[in-house]
Amino acid sequence: MSYCYTVSGVSLRPDTVGAGHSAARHSGSMLSNKCGFNLVQVGGTWVRQAEEKQQVEGRLSEAKIFENKCDHGVSWTVVSPIVFTYRVTQCKNLLDPSNGTLLWGHLEDEALESTIRSVRPVKRFVVIDQTVNRLYGARVAKYFQDRGVVCKILPLPTTEENKSLELVTKILEEVHAFDLDRRSEPIIAVGGGVCLDVVGLAASLYRRRTPYIRVPTTVLAYVDASVGAKTGVNFAGGKNKLGSYVPPVATFLDRAFFQTLPPRQVSNGMAEMLKMALMKHRGLFELLEADGSELLRSKMQSPGGGGGAEREDGAAASTRIAIETMLEELAPNLWEDDLDRLVDFGHLISPKLEMAVLPALLHGEAVNVDMSFMVYVAHQRGLLTAQEKQRVVRCMLGLALPVWHPGCTLDLVRAALEERRSHSAGSLRMPLPTGLGCAEIFHDALEDNVLCQVHQNWTDELNQLGTNQRV
Amino acid sequence: MSYCYTVSGVSLRPDTVGAGHSAARHSGSMLSNKCGFNLVQVGGTWVRQAEEKQQVEGRLSEAKIFENKCDHGVSWTVVSPIVFTYRVTQCKNLLDPSNGTLLWGHLEDEALESTIRSVRPVKRFVVIDQTVNRLYGARVAKYFQDRGVVCKILPLPTTEENKSLELVTKILEEVHAFDLDRRSEPIIAVGGGVCLDVVGLAASLYRRRTPYIRVPTTVLAYVDASVGAKTGVNFAGGKNKLGSYVPPVATFLDRAFFQTLPPRQVSNGMAEMLKMALMKHRGLFELLEADGSELLRSKMQSPGGGGGAEREDGAAASTRIAIETMLEELAPNLWEDDLDRLVDFGHLISPKLEMAVLPALLHGEAVNVDMSFMVYVAHQRGLLTAQEKQRVVRCMLGLALPVWHPGCTLDLVRAALEERRSHSAGSLRMPLPTGLGCAEIFHDALEDNVLCQVHQNWTDELNQLGTNQRV
Repeated sequence: MSYCYTVSGVSLRPDTVGAGHSAARHSGSMLSNKCGFNLVQVGGTWVRQAEEKQQVEGRLSEAKIFENKCDHGVSWTVVSPIVFTYRVTQCKNLLDPSNGTLLWGHLEDEALESTIRSVRPVKRFVVIDQTVNRLYGARVAKYFQDRGVVCKILPLPTTEENKSLELVTKILEEVHAFDLDRRSEPIIAVGGGVCLDVVGLAASLYRRRTPYIRVPTTVLAYVDASVGAKTGVNFAGGKNKLGSYVPPVATFLDRAFFQTLPPRQVSNGMAEMLKMALMKHRGLFELLEADGSELLRSKMQSPGGGGGAEREDGAAASTRIAIETMLEELAPNLWEDDLDRLVDFGHLISPKLEMAVLPALLHGEAVNVDMSFMVYVAHQRGLLTAQEKQRVVRCMLGLALPVWHPGCTLDLVRAALEERRSHSAGSLRMPLPTGLGCAEIFHDALEDNVLCQVHQNWTDELNQLGTNQRV
Repeated sequence: MSYCYTVSGVSLRPDTVGAGHSAARHSGSMLSNKCGFNLVQVGGTWVRQAEEKQQVEGRLSEAKIFENKCDHGVSWTVVSPIVFTYRVTQCKNLLDPSNGTLLWGHLEDEALESTIRSVRPVKRFVVIDQTVNRLYGARVAKYFQDRGVVCKILPLPTTEENKSLELVTKILEEVHAFDLDRRSEPIIAVGGGVCLDVVGLAASLYRRRTPYIRVPTTVLAYVDASVGAKTGVNFAGGKNKLGSYVPPVATFLDRAFFQTLPPRQVSNGMAEMLKMALMKHRGLFELLEADGSELLRSKMQSPGGGGGAEREDGAAASTRIAIETMLEELAPNLWEDDLDRLVDFGHLISPKLEMAVLPALLHGEAVNVDMSFMVYVAHQRGLLTAQEKQRVVRCMLGLALPVWHPGCTLDLVRAALEERRSHSAGSLRMPLPTGLGCAEIFHDALEDNVLCQVHQNWTDELNQLGTNQRV
């Protein structure tokens, strides 16, 4: 279905096939029966001129206006591209005052110079998870103090239970009182995925868009929340029901934070890495299969504390590949206009499961239970061999992730898939592995008797393993 | 200054100069020291490939990823364009059940067919200002009833004083309970600018983006709030401090609503029309100058109730030109990345003035007081002759708009301009008329003694006229 309203990463040039086909088609059909105008800026004023005749010299906008006059009146269609640019940087010693990344890493060099030359005192507003604050708050404060930055640090309990509009309002009140320059002083979020999501939403609302920076401290946030444009809070019992698609100006990644994580939190994040491995990177799957337990034990730290470019170890390689594959899938579909998304693997059942058993399962754990079930679906459909299915489950267990959960009942699976179908324009759009490291999206419905059978097999084979993990 | 984070209407092609120069420069500098990748979709999977070698066949995305490896680690820069498309339609008899516009006017024809063929019952959620509801609610309900649409109508007191996050939350709760399909069932807002802004924000937040439709019932909302992408609410005493830039799928304009407006509300909207006239359309200024009082008396209705394409009268012409000129200025700068905006004329002092004297001045009235002051600034600078200045003031009086207000003190003007400067990257960026229907943006500061002198002259000449209007 094609709406007049289309938000998609597409070209306005008819010769290019873009990510969201609807706008391209739309634009095509407009051209056929409407008069199109370019927009040219002359002096400070924008003037429109018919597409076919470029008369005035001036700055040409990428935006266009199409006009359609008929008996009933006039209709204008505005087509305006907005370019989002953001940076994801892996680095070491992020909180070392000699490392300028946290303060200036979001800027281009030329801008950096002009900013440093400015006489105003530099200000930064930092929202930090309160647990992270206990561990790293003093170092964050010292970092900005050493660099002469006027800094406000706001510690908040950014748990899934608190991920609400109230927390966003709290941040907004404090940001407003601090009087940021919303053009040059990004808000910095330091914490896990909830912290990054909540701060991202607050920043995207404040003065309609204030730049923000993400500093993930958990493995999950590092490989998942950090990479895309999504912000959000829970609402009316629904996970991430409110939010926006506004990327940070920059994300700064430092694996050193993982050293203070409990092992369960490391496993939690590795579920999202495994997702990318299963969907599109056999090499990453084999790495997690072979070294998963060791990565978990070392908390993704490089031997010798490294992580630079010298020799890439398993921790460096696996996080790099996880992020590269995520960026590949997210960049062409930043506003999720295309409903067919490989990154949705593990996210069809898990939102409902996670909310239903809250706080029993962490996000990545719920995702893993979902993926485990879907691997059984893939096997039932003949997409994975029994051996491949077993390798995936063994890999999950090596990462200390739950492969089954009593809360993931047949009824919950049914309800979750039905909700998915109704919110995805009538199709399940179910990503399934078609081998180890490759996948496709399936549109046909899962028949109920098949679903019953898969759920039964899955439960028979894994309920012992699933509950062994923890409870 | 150029940030890593740039949101602007620019081309990714280096040969095109876009609306926001920063992203173009950014992209240029990246190319010089980074490795660039295109994104190609093969099967359901996106793969990146070096810009210089196009090996794989597939759908090419407009998004790009630039990679920069150095000793400290890896940095990726994502550049992803999102295309916003929206429609603004002027029509007659919008609430006549035989007119399909309100229900289907946001869709392309082909989509319309597939929707009509679908078996699901059609649903619509309508938020309507409670005063508008008293006047038109029954007709809105009948419209949808006659067309077999399951409709929920939510009347709300959408006044400036209530323009808050609480009102947004109220809408979100009701929308959530109604269980909309967020892909195909746009939320409809019927009312003035506050109603359209608040509903726009709620819609842009719900599931990170739910389509919405604007039906303005005031002249102000018709020519102003309806045309752009801005949504918003007041926060912590500041006007529109929270919001987003998400355009509606469609705006439906019907001047028939104006018949029930009090005259003051008609004047209020004409201030924004006058703004566009002064900035860029001498013809519109002359029309308002000659026919302003009559347009006010007739409440912008066309003689004979028309407004179609047959013969364009003053009401039809003035609203059409107001919208065309607004679209010209807004389309190339949808996210307001370019700080130099002619449409900001009348909006440097007025936000502070409007909030300071709330509810004494309506938005357009505050804008007019601001414009009146700025016309004196322009005259003092030699940009307008004394005669031109007088013609503008007389035109304003003909539209029954206040040209002076006791709340617009010298201190308030100083504070407002200082706030403008600090929020516009250190420059006033003051749009001023340089004649009747042309304008430029001035970056230099207003010296305080000049400001004092202008304020004195303005007060001496207009305080009698200003207070005569109403109080």
